[in-house]
Amino acid sequence: MSSTVSNSAREGILRRYRDRLPITDATPMLCLGEGETPLVLSRRLGERVGCRRLYFKLEMCNPTGSFKDRGMVVAVAKAMEEGARAVLCASTGNTSASAAAYAAHCGLEAFVLVPRDNIARGKLAQAVAHGARVLALQGNFDTALEIAREISRRHPVAIVNSVNPNRIQGQKTAAFEIVDALADAPDILFIPVGNAGNITAYWLGFVEYYQAELAARKPRIMGWQAAGAAPIVRGEPVEQPETVASAIRIGNPASWKGALAARDESGGAIEAVTDEEIMDAYRLLAQEEGIFAEPASAACVAGLLKHALSAKQSKGTPELDIADKTVVCIITGHGLKDPETALAIEAEMTDVPAELAAVERAMALT
Amino acid sequence: MSSTVSNSAREGILRRYRDRLPITDATPMLCLGEGETPLVLSRRLGERVGCRRLYFKLEMCNPTGSFKDRGMVVAVAKAMEEGARAVLCASTGNTSASAAAYAAHCGLEAFVLVPRDNIARGKLAQAVAHGARVLALQGNFDTALEIAREISRRHPVAIVNSVNPNRIQGQKTAAFEIVDALADAPDILFIPVGNAGNITAYWLGFVEYYQAELAARKPRIMGWQAAGAAPIVRGEPVEQPETVASAIRIGNPASWKGALAARDESGGAIEAVTDEEIMDAYRLLAQEEGIFAEPASAACVAGLLKHALSAKQSKGTPELDIADKTVVCIITGHGLKDPETALAIEAEMTDVPAELAAVERAMALT
Repeated sequence: MSSTVSNSAREGILRRYRDRLPITDATPMLCLGEGETPLVLSRRLGERVGCRRLYFKLEMCNPTGSFKDRGMVVAVAKAMEEGARAVLCASTGNTSASAAAYAAHCGLEAFVLVPRDNIARGKLAQAVAHGARVLALQGNFDTALEIAREISRRHPVAIVNSVNPNRIQGQKTAAFEIVDALADAPDILFIPVGNAGNITAYWLGFVEYYQAELAARKPRIMGWQAAGAAPIVRGEPVEQPETVASAIRIGNPASWKGALAARDESGGAIEAVTDEEIMDAYRLLAQEEGIFAEPASAACVAGLLKHALSAKQSKGTPELDIADKTVVCIITGHGLKDPETALAIEAEMTDVPAELAAVERAMALT
Repeated sequence: MSSTVSNSAREGILRRYRDRLPITDATPMLCLGEGETPLVLSRRLGERVGCRRLYFKLEMCNPTGSFKDRGMVVAVAKAMEEGARAVLCASTGNTSASAAAYAAHCGLEAFVLVPRDNIARGKLAQAVAHGARVLALQGNFDTALEIAREISRRHPVAIVNSVNPNRIQGQKTAAFEIVDALADAPDILFIPVGNAGNITAYWLGFVEYYQAELAARKPRIMGWQAAGAAPIVRGEPVEQPETVASAIRIGNPASWKGALAARDESGGAIEAVTDEEIMDAYRLLAQEEGIFAEPASAACVAGLLKHALSAKQSKGTPELDIADKTVVCIITGHGLKDPETALAIEAEMTDVPAELAAVERAMALT
């Protein structure tokens, strides 16, 4: 019988991975449907790049549309446990959306501190919909973050930026799920790198499972930055990071050291892809695989395509042969997060009279 | 140990419910991560309406952001089995997004036939991103649907509108999942009603599980139409349906009879809520529960709130007492699907100087 009672399905990461998270008996077991996201086997891109076991981990299927929900549920649960009355973050994007959603779920106030010159109303739409209060700061992002930290030290207000260690604890559960689904770690992980908290969290999760003998191996970690926002690749902070992939438009990553550790301990690499390569991958992922991701997610697919191409041209490192390897790409956020970029895709639109024969001709059926 | 190997998780509805779907050995086992969506226990709205076991089924967590993916994976798999080279639908919204995604996943062409005067580029953004070709018809929706049906009769092109019976077969799996998660059917289901395929599918699923003795009861089905697009409530088609909830803006539902059967056989009702009630529920759901749904989804929550309110005023039917009942609301689509409506929410924004004391004042911490 294919249908069995599965009360355990989608119970949320706090319950599912309770033993591996900083949970106490006093932690509220929040769940807004985060985690247990699909791991989808490629039907077409795998063939294109010459990889038989290419998977996409669809973190875009989290309730607010990005991987941030995994870390946020832990951060907000711990905030409640510690008696916080509000949560606060300096963010214009996915972090603020997730923080506002979990705060709303729990009846906490949410504050989003944003440099006034960086406010794009579209990016804040989710946080606003969830009732967050936006503080438009007459200063830059670093100042916003510093003030946010100071406020969390002085008041019962939890800062839920990635400086909050509970965020990375929650995010590591995605690595657990991949191992649980594949019955071992993959050979290679392709992941976008912006603030570098997520690459740090995945590596933490894979190492933890390996040490607990729940995985027989650890993956090689291939991190991808946008060329215009590639401080780790360049080895120094970028003053004015620029890229179409706004979710990884970061000049000075908070988890820089974690990213280097993931790279070096796994025998991996952190490399850069251009905006053009990102947009090519963005379209390919949507049009050849059926996955509509935000541009930042496409960065790691761009990296995979780049490696496959240079392998064909015999320029690739032979040890990154992917043909018989299990490869996972992390799709961090939904394409619906970034409607402007989607609308920039030119529509193939044909005007047709309301007649069968005309539609047949337009569809090349005659 | 909380972490066990779970290869069965998120395997897609074709594999999970194979025995209960029109699947043969020749059907390709497609999976784009559809199904196994979260069933979230309310933390705050349940208290507001006086219901201890209020759940939300987050169909918005499907890969294209709506419940349509469940039916589409079956429809596209059957289309491939039958040798179709393309899929075709008359749709401007969630159906076209889902059809285009699954077609892209499989390498089929996707065509979207849209009345030229109804084209809203924003609503088509997903289908366009997935590479669908848009045919702008010089005619109305009924003509578009009739031409689409005729083309599917004459050519190896599958029509994937809800006239395709595989759509409803796939959608019934959401009812299975609810029973699987709760270990029985809920007492009452609140669900939005537009074209009425989904209410039909849920009832089909609940009845099927009941007859197979996988559930001890069947739920009462409470369907909700928008007041400006309420043909079933009024008992006659609506010429010019109007509502903010575009996904249920339907004047002449394709599955009208199925909706009446669900209502009458379950001892339920189909009622209407105004756009104002829908928007109130939309905000409440986002701001008190942390769930950002498209307006159509909020229609069923509006219905729940309306019933709770009239119960308090002793106007409600006493037999719809929800206090000790298990109640499930179906959240059909993601709020990110409809950025215009989200952006119409007024942002609570405060300008603050870049000083700690100023931010403290703005947060009422001093």
